[in-house]
Amino acid sequence: MVTSREIQLKSRPVGMPSAENFELATVTVPDPAAGEVQVKNIWMTVDPYMRGRMVDRPSYVPPFQLGKPLQGGAIGEVVASNDPVLGRGDLVSTMFGWREFFNAPAGSLQKLDTFGLPPQAFLGVAGMPGLTAFVGLLKIAALKPGDVVFVSAAAGAVGSVVCQIAKIKGHTVIGSAGGGEKGAFLKQIGVDHVIDYKAVSNLTEVLQRVAPNGIDVYFDNVGGEHLEAALAVANRFARFALCGMISQYNVAGMPVGPRNLILAVGKSIRLEGFIVANHFNLLPEFQKDMSGWIREGKMTWKETVEHGIENAPTAFLKLFKGENLGKMLVKLA
Amino acid sequence: MVTSREIQLKSRPVGMPSAENFELATVTVPDPAAGEVQVKNIWMTVDPYMRGRMVDRPSYVPPFQLGKPLQGGAIGEVVASNDPVLGRGDLVSTMFGWREFFNAPAGSLQKLDTFGLPPQAFLGVAGMPGLTAFVGLLKIAALKPGDVVFVSAAAGAVGSVVCQIAKIKGHTVIGSAGGGEKGAFLKQIGVDHVIDYKAVSNLTEVLQRVAPNGIDVYFDNVGGEHLEAALAVANRFARFALCGMISQYNVAGMPVGPRNLILAVGKSIRLEGFIVANHFNLLPEFQKDMSGWIREGKMTWKETVEHGIENAPTAFLKLFKGENLGKMLVKLA
Repeated sequence: MVTSREIQLKSRPVGMPSAENFELATVTVPDPAAGEVQVKNIWMTVDPYMRGRMVDRPSYVPPFQLGKPLQGGAIGEVVASNDPVLGRGDLVSTMFGWREFFNAPAGSLQKLDTFGLPPQAFLGVAGMPGLTAFVGLLKIAALKPGDVVFVSAAAGAVGSVVCQIAKIKGHTVIGSAGGGEKGAFLKQIGVDHVIDYKAVSNLTEVLQRVAPNGIDVYFDNVGGEHLEAALAVANRFARFALCGMISQYNVAGMPVGPRNLILAVGKSIRLEGFIVANHFNLLPEFQKDMSGWIREGKMTWKETVEHGIENAPTAFLKLFKGENLGKMLVKLA
Repeated sequence: MVTSREIQLKSRPVGMPSAENFELATVTVPDPAAGEVQVKNIWMTVDPYMRGRMVDRPSYVPPFQLGKPLQGGAIGEVVASNDPVLGRGDLVSTMFGWREFFNAPAGSLQKLDTFGLPPQAFLGVAGMPGLTAFVGLLKIAALKPGDVVFVSAAAGAVGSVVCQIAKIKGHTVIGSAGGGEKGAFLKQIGVDHVIDYKAVSNLTEVLQRVAPNGIDVYFDNVGGEHLEAALAVANRFARFALCGMISQYNVAGMPVGPRNLILAVGKSIRLEGFIVANHFNLLPEFQKDMSGWIREGKMTWKETVEHGIENAPTAFLKLFKGENLGKMLVKLA
């Protein structure tokens, strides 16, 4: 029996979430029953999509429940086992985040082979965010030779992988991110044109200037003004992968839609939303390509780390203030 | 030498166009030179897309020029020929609309074989609007068995063909149009659920009610509130063919974009704009299918006709007031 701290959803945020929406609770986790293992989480992830699960509405994943622990990706270590499938010391990648300990049937968990990478990489570049970048750029936006690629939230966990895959494949890449530190990182990973969106008054004009021949692919993580600029500067037959719209998540009323969407008609633009869970069939191809790129030193990543389960809400809130560089993580043990 | 009246663009409309933006002019057309024919237009078409060409901006077709005759689809008859390729009495389908007579090189015009249809059908169901419906529904929206189809401006030249192709292929079709006369026409052509958008206060709620299992395909002719309702009611993996956004064409400032576009991410919706001119490769298939459907009595169409070149602006303006049922045409001779 162990004592575990967890973060519960105390109230549903309206507009920008705040610390008051979360509650730190302490629960008791019994010894694992027959067929179960007990896992101690080492790393957990916070991601923008979790904001959507805080709203009580039908969606592709069910909403978080009030008074229950939040869920999300985590890497943990088996600390007690009552099943031969997994033993003490085995690492597992699960969706039982936002808590320190949990029990689960051993057969429902998958042992993590890190291939020499730090385990938390499997919450970022080698995990869901990396696969999201891979799927969105190569399958949804159907990247093809000569495409000029525009990426928003380009220094984030997904965006920075999009930029690097596009560079590995020889494309001109324009990345937008807020602030000098992120811009420096984007330069470091080879992004051709960095836009500090916080420092420009007219994003469309700036995008037009750095992409005088237009853009062919837009990887949208933010929506809003970025999406409008991309529509304005897009070439005919451009493809937009709609991955997220973080600028819109915390608008309490109805957000503003792209006012120039009409351009999609005349320019024959395709905008396609996707969620990575529908594309797990690409996982083997992704793992093969990504492990190769990492081995060859072609893939760089950053982490922003908060420490302790009690700081998980802080880490989450920082996502919406743009206070993360690369993957936002919480180190639990 | 003949006298020809034509409609010139006098000024560029801001917001809703009005009669003052147009000028009726009389010009002299000389006898056709060697290699030329003289054509007397019998029918001309006015279409919503022409509104876009009245704005001076780069687009997929060049803008109309001030003080010059407007251009558009027309069916004419050769009245004088100075070339063996075409003779007096031959019908031709051209883009020399908004005028009564013109000369052109015979080799640049294509003789129209009507296959027994009234010639003006080639400005509608058997012409560009019909091909637009065919391309948008079958190629862009990639209609597949079981899809529930939602069509806006469903009683229009394009929308009514979309509805009928979908019904021929066995789909449940929901059509939105304004007013009882259009609704009766939609019932007549077999549309399963007719929405009179002018009579409902919450389009999304009504669409939800008539499509309790959601929609899979949306053929968008109007944008705005219809597009938002379609996003709200769409199923996962829905495909939207963006053909036009007539509700947005005459907004003087920035129009309102779909405020719920974020739904495209979670539902993996694809929105794709298109213009028919990029899909002429489907013309033979279209002509084969459409002629068969017409022959078998499966395709019905309506025309709203104004008479005389002087009434072409009136016909055009009526498009934006929804005063046309089916194809809006001008009979010139």
